[in-house]
Amino acid sequence: MSALEPAFSEDIRHQMLGLGEAARAAAQVLATAPAQAKDKALKAAAAAIRTGRGRILAANAKDLAEAEDLSAALRDRLELDDDRIEAMASGLEEIAKLADPVGQVMKEWTRPNGLKIARVRVPLGVVGVIYESRPNVTADAGGLCLKAGNAVILRGGSESLHSSAAIGDCLAHGLRLAGLPEDSIQLVPTADRAAVGAMLAMAEHIDVIIPRGGRSLIERVREESRIPVIAHLEGNCHVYVDGAAEVEMARRIVMNAKMRRTGICGAAESLLIERRAAESHLKPILDDLVGAGCEVRGDETVQALDDRVVPATEADWKTEYLDAIISVRIVDGVDEAIAHINRHGSHHTDSIVTEDDEAAERFLARVDSAIVLRNASTQFADGGEFGMGAEIGISTGRLHARGPVGAEELTTYKYVVRGSGQVRP
Amino acid sequence: MSALEPAFSEDIRHQMLGLGEAARAAAQVLATAPAQAKDKALKAAAAAIRTGRGRILAANAKDLAEAEDLSAALRDRLELDDDRIEAMASGLEEIAKLADPVGQVMKEWTRPNGLKIARVRVPLGVVGVIYESRPNVTADAGGLCLKAGNAVILRGGSESLHSSAAIGDCLAHGLRLAGLPEDSIQLVPTADRAAVGAMLAMAEHIDVIIPRGGRSLIERVREESRIPVIAHLEGNCHVYVDGAAEVEMARRIVMNAKMRRTGICGAAESLLIERRAAESHLKPILDDLVGAGCEVRGDETVQALDDRVVPATEADWKTEYLDAIISVRIVDGVDEAIAHINRHGSHHTDSIVTEDDEAAERFLARVDSAIVLRNASTQFADGGEFGMGAEIGISTGRLHARGPVGAEELTTYKYVVRGSGQVRP
Repeated sequence: MSALEPAFSEDIRHQMLGLGEAARAAAQVLATAPAQAKDKALKAAAAAIRTGRGRILAANAKDLAEAEDLSAALRDRLELDDDRIEAMASGLEEIAKLADPVGQVMKEWTRPNGLKIARVRVPLGVVGVIYESRPNVTADAGGLCLKAGNAVILRGGSESLHSSAAIGDCLAHGLRLAGLPEDSIQLVPTADRAAVGAMLAMAEHIDVIIPRGGRSLIERVREESRIPVIAHLEGNCHVYVDGAAEVEMARRIVMNAKMRRTGICGAAESLLIERRAAESHLKPILDDLVGAGCEVRGDETVQALDDRVVPATEADWKTEYLDAIISVRIVDGVDEAIAHINRHGSHHTDSIVTEDDEAAERFLARVDSAIVLRNASTQFADGGEFGMGAEIGISTGRLHARGPVGAEELTTYKYVVRGSGQVRP
Repeated sequence: MSALEPAFSEDIRHQMLGLGEAARAAAQVLATAPAQAKDKALKAAAAAIRTGRGRILAANAKDLAEAEDLSAALRDRLELDDDRIEAMASGLEEIAKLADPVGQVMKEWTRPNGLKIARVRVPLGVVGVIYESRPNVTADAGGLCLKAGNAVILRGGSESLHSSAAIGDCLAHGLRLAGLPEDSIQLVPTADRAAVGAMLAMAEHIDVIIPRGGRSLIERVREESRIPVIAHLEGNCHVYVDGAAEVEMARRIVMNAKMRRTGICGAAESLLIERRAAESHLKPILDDLVGAGCEVRGDETVQALDDRVVPATEADWKTEYLDAIISVRIVDGVDEAIAHINRHGSHHTDSIVTEDDEAAERFLARVDSAIVLRNASTQFADGGEFGMGAEIGISTGRLHARGPVGAEELTTYKYVVRGSGQVRP
C-alpha cells in the first residue's frame, strides 16, 4: 500500500474529521474548565452508570450475541457483569477525587532581570485512544482524559460497539449536567476498521495517540501514525533471583509475580537465577510453581534439576505468555541477568531479589525498564499500587511518560513569563 | 514511493546501522558514566577546539569553496570565524558547569506497604540530530547530549561536512581523554541525503530524533520518521498590544521583539493591537518600526493610519519572515487576539503588553504556546535567558518537552522501587 494513498474512503475520512474538529473545539473549553466542573461530570457519569446498569448489560448482551466466533479469552474481556459495572462507576469517582493536575505550577523562579518564570501544567489537547475488546476502557480512559482537561476520541473494539455506546451515553450525561461540552468524550461510531487509519492521519486534530492492546495493534499504530504515540507494549517482565537472596522471600516473590494474576502486564514471564542458587533456591521454587499448576520451560541446567521442566526455546525468552507458564534460565550473576533482560525484555517491569546491596544497585541502575524493583513482586506495576490513582496503562516508550500513565502524565506544560517591561539587551 | 520500499541503498543502510549499533553500545556505558568523566570530556573538547582553531578554519574554508551556489544567508550560517569558534568552546565549558541531570531523584515517596518509590532521571538513550548548515550545532548538540548521558548521531548539512568533521575530531579527543567511548558522538560521514531516510527508519537504534532546520526539513522528518520526534518548528511569534498597555513599554517591547535580531526563532513576526489603542499606541510604534527600516504589512485600518504601510495578505499572518518585516492587524480585544494567535501562530512564543491583570491572565491561560509572556519581549525565548543553560532548540511540539530543550529535557525517567519482600495481595 502506498503511503500517499489512504486506505480509507472519503466518507470515513469526512466523518473522522468531523469528530476531530468537534474534539478540538471541546478541548479549548476544557483546557480552562474549573476542577469542580470536571469532577461534577465524573461523579454524575458514575451515577448514570449505576442507574443505567440494565441498559449497559442489555447492550453488552447484544455485543456478545453478535460476537459468536470470539475466543473464550476475548469473550471474557468483553463481558460485563454487576461487579465490572460497579468498578467502572467507582473508578470514575476515584478519578474525581484526584487533585486536578491542570494549572499546577511545577517550578517557579525569578531571573536576575526580574522576569518571573513558571512552568505550568496544561492539558495535552486532544487524545485519541485505540483499544480492543474491554468496554470498561471507555469509562476509564474517558474519565482520565477529562480529568486532565483533554478532549478524547475513543476507538474501542468493533465487537464492543453497543456496550461502549451505552457507557458513552452515561459519560455524555455527566458532561451535560456539569455544563461541559458533550464532545469532550466522543466515540467513533463505526465498526469500520478504516476509521483507525483515518484517525492516525489526523495530526491537525489529535495531539497524541494511546493504543491499548496486543502487539499487532501497537505495531500497526507505530507504523501508520503521523501523530506522537504513547505506547503500551507488552510486559515481558523478569524476576532475577540472586545468589544472595533469602530463600523464603524469593519463593514468595516468584510465586506472586507469576501466579497472583497471570493475565496482567506486570505478571512475570521469565525467571533468571544465579547458578550458585540453583540447588538452594531454584529447587523449592520449581516445586512451588509446578505445584500451583505452572508450566516451567527451562534451559538445560534447569531441566536437569527437575524432570517436570520442559525445554525452553530461544523464542521463550521473548514471549509474554499471560498464562500459567514461565521460562527459567540459569545465569552467572547480576551482569548476565541485566544483559538478558535488556536484550529480551520489553522495558516494562523487572525485579531483583537479593540481600546484596551492590548487586541490587547495579541491577536498578542498569536494567533499562520503566519500573525496576528490589525485593518486591513485579505485580506492583500498577498506577493504583504506586499511589497515582487510575492509569490508562503502563508506557514502555521512553518519551514523555514512562511507567504508569495517570492524569498527570496526560498533561504537558507551558512556560508563563511575567515581566514589567523587560526587553532583551 | 511505497512505504515498504526504502528510498536508500543497502550500502547506506548498512553504514547507518553500523553507526546505530555503535551508538547503542556507547549509550549503555554513558548511562552510568560519572558526571566528572562527562564534564572532563566537555572541557577537553573545548580546549581541543581552541587549539584546533586553524584546522577548523581550514576545513571551513574548504566547505565554503565547495559551496559556491549557496545563498548569502546560508553562507553566513556556514562560515566560521574566531568568535564563532570561541563561542563553541565556551559553550561546551558552560555545559560542563551545569548540574548533571542523570540520577536526579525527581520525586520520592513511601507506600503504606513500605515500598519506597523514586522517580529518577535517566538518559533518553540514543539521540539523532538532523540539522542544516550551521556547523556549531555539531559542538552544541554533541555536548548537550553527552551531558545528559545520551549517545548521539549527528547529521549536519552536507555543505558543512568538512567543518563538522574537524569539530567532531575535537569532541572525539575529549571523549578519549576522559575514557568515554568515542562512539558517544558520531557524525554521519556521508553527504548522501539518503542517509537521513535510513536514520529515520532505525527505530531499534535511535530513541528520539531532533530536527533543527527549516520547515521542509521538519515536515520531511515528521512524515518519514518511525522514531519519536522532538520538533522545533518555526517561530511565528506575536506581540499583542492591549488597549490598557503603557505606551512607552509597548513601543520598547515591540521594537525589541521585532528588531533586536530578526533572524532568531523568538523574533516577533506579527503585531496585534486593540482597536482603541490604534491612535495612541500604534501610531508611535509604526514610526519606530519604519524608522528602523522595518517593512510594515497591515490590514486596512493599519494602512489608513500610515501611508508607509503596505497591504498584508492572508498568507502574511502565517509567515515567519526572519527579516525586518512585520504584519500588523487590529483586533477588538484580548479574545480576538487569542483566537488569531491560536489559529495562525506556531505555538512557539507570544507576548501580551497590558496593565490589565484580567486581560493578561486570560491571554497567558488561553494562548496555546510553549512560552507566553506578559510585558516582556518575545526575544527572551531562549534557554540561556530562562537560566537553563545551553539548549538544543525550542520545542513547539506538545509531548515530552515544550519550549527550551536543555540537558534536563534530553532525559527521561524510570521508577526505582525498593522493597523488603512485599508481594501484592
